[in-house]
Amino acid sequence: MKGSSVDRRTILAGLLVSAATLSVSGRSARAQSDPLPSWNEGQAKTSILDFVSAVTREGAPDFVPAPERIATFDNDGTLWCEQPMYVQLAFALDRVKALSAKHPKWKQKQPFKAVLDNDIAMLAKAGEKGLVELVMATHAGMTTAEFEQIASEWIGSARHPKYDKPYTDLVYQPMRELLAYLRANGFKTFIVSGGGIEFMRPWSERIYGILPEQVVGSSIKTQFKVDKDGAVLVRLPTIDLVDDGPGKPVGINSHIGRRPIAAFGNSDGDFQMLQWTTGARGRRFGLLVHHTDAEREYAYDRKSPFGKLDKAIDAAGANGWTVVSMKDDWKRVFSFQ
Amino acid sequence: MKGSSVDRRTILAGLLVSAATLSVSGRSARAQSDPLPSWNEGQAKTSILDFVSAVTREGAPDFVPAPERIATFDNDGTLWCEQPMYVQLAFALDRVKALSAKHPKWKQKQPFKAVLDNDIAMLAKAGEKGLVELVMATHAGMTTAEFEQIASEWIGSARHPKYDKPYTDLVYQPMRELLAYLRANGFKTFIVSGGGIEFMRPWSERIYGILPEQVVGSSIKTQFKVDKDGAVLVRLPTIDLVDDGPGKPVGINSHIGRRPIAAFGNSDGDFQMLQWTTGARGRRFGLLVHHTDAEREYAYDRKSPFGKLDKAIDAAGANGWTVVSMKDDWKRVFSFQ
Repeated sequence: MKGSSVDRRTILAGLLVSAATLSVSGRSARAQSDPLPSWNEGQAKTSILDFVSAVTREGAPDFVPAPERIATFDNDGTLWCEQPMYVQLAFALDRVKALSAKHPKWKQKQPFKAVLDNDIAMLAKAGEKGLVELVMATHAGMTTAEFEQIASEWIGSARHPKYDKPYTDLVYQPMRELLAYLRANGFKTFIVSGGGIEFMRPWSERIYGILPEQVVGSSIKTQFKVDKDGAVLVRLPTIDLVDDGPGKPVGINSHIGRRPIAAFGNSDGDFQMLQWTTGARGRRFGLLVHHTDAEREYAYDRKSPFGKLDKAIDAAGANGWTVVSMKDDWKRVFSFQ
Repeated sequence: MKGSSVDRRTILAGLLVSAATLSVSGRSARAQSDPLPSWNEGQAKTSILDFVSAVTREGAPDFVPAPERIATFDNDGTLWCEQPMYVQLAFALDRVKALSAKHPKWKQKQPFKAVLDNDIAMLAKAGEKGLVELVMATHAGMTTAEFEQIASEWIGSARHPKYDKPYTDLVYQPMRELLAYLRANGFKTFIVSGGGIEFMRPWSERIYGILPEQVVGSSIKTQFKVDKDGAVLVRLPTIDLVDDGPGKPVGINSHIGRRPIAAFGNSDGDFQMLQWTTGARGRRFGLLVHHTDAEREYAYDRKSPFGKLDKAIDAAGANGWTVVSMKDDWKRVFSFQ
């Protein structure tokens, strides 16, 4: 701007820097590269980098041995999109429609009638009891292998109404980078979700790199049987664990058996998981994703029927939890954007 | 035996072999060394080596990718000694005695009276209902952190009545080698035990190299609470999962989310775990430890109150399960022998 000589100096300096960068070995170039490229610089990103550095530096006061580096992630609204409704609810509604020919009485019976009529207002009135009825009618009564196949086929063909993409494309790119970054630093990454454990396991490895044994979720009871097909587990219409709110520390204790040192959520359903994680001695990390981005994703918090964030965000300051503003802290939300 | 010249030849040959062994590099010596030195040569050892070779040889018809190499191990009687009673029962009885001063009514109330009187015959009459009462009185009513401390302190001081050693010394050396051998071949090793999940986790890493998240066991329900000590989980006197018999496939499915490709047990409580494991398609492996060694350990099967082995051993042949005779197949039982 101030004349061609200055511009040339800048360009030359730039070329020199590039040459220097190229001359370092591939190994140090990788070490120096940004592990979280989809995160804007700012307090949220810095807090993550500082925490990981503190607990992985051998000999440092906050060092944590690798086997104890447990990080737990909520799924809906934290790792992937939960609007306009939880993905698993979309699955349950589709299943009601697919099964309705076999259940003629559903046309007259709530909450099934509301689903078949696409009457969302009436469905909302059915409340939690109605939702449980829908889940039991669509998630139980088959073997675990049959359910895995049904869920896998559905996720392979269903598409999100706003983005017209498979749901598995609606993973937050910054969170995918965060998962990889933590694992590269010796962390074990677990999903701890209110969603169904057997609904998530068929694709958690493919989309998050999280193995089935590292998925914790809500569950229904199963029963072992040896029938003509051999040994099977039959899914029963009985709730086992509601892995949400105060159920999350219970699920973590049952499946992992250690308190996490880092926990990531986005709603009041994650409040107790963050309390359980950051309330222990030693350096701990809690993070809430705040959905502030109506343009690239959705903007919602205290009044949302899915992913309500109210008490947990009010408690963030006193607990030292990092709050991520999706709009400000994320360079991009989805990999396709 | 045939004269000094032969003996001398033998000795010389022996020395030559030793020298040759010493001259190979450390690396090849390790590669060629026996991964299961406490196992006698025979069908049991061969079946293990053949199976591991078949599922780990890339490109071979039975190859299994590493993340799917799940091996599940029963604990009592499979990895460590379960006689003259389950270790956890010895713990419960000691706890009743330790707590009895606070519970004066136990002196008149069964099954507590039987424990305090050391009346094993009367205790046996209390049956499963009595055992559950003992477990609830001794395993519930405290936080998970408090229980971990109680169990850790007990295991650190209690001694086995026959061997006069800490229980943690009564791990079967051949099985310890097997765990290490499987892990060296990319397997993930899980405990799947009828014993309490939180009773085993405090020492499973130290004695077996099995991390808390790879321990599956029976459990009672817990409840999340924030009290003056911060966030805690309180252990409730309510059964959650009985991880025994048909409960083992249920526990495996809940915690691991994949069918194992290898399972190791010693009693009818492991029958369904072996069915669930070996009943799937592809190369699978099932093994039963048969306690045939009254001298070095114990000899028991069909009539034993602990670790009864009856239906499972009858089914071994038809299912292709390997049966290990402790007396014949194990060079030594414990590391101190």
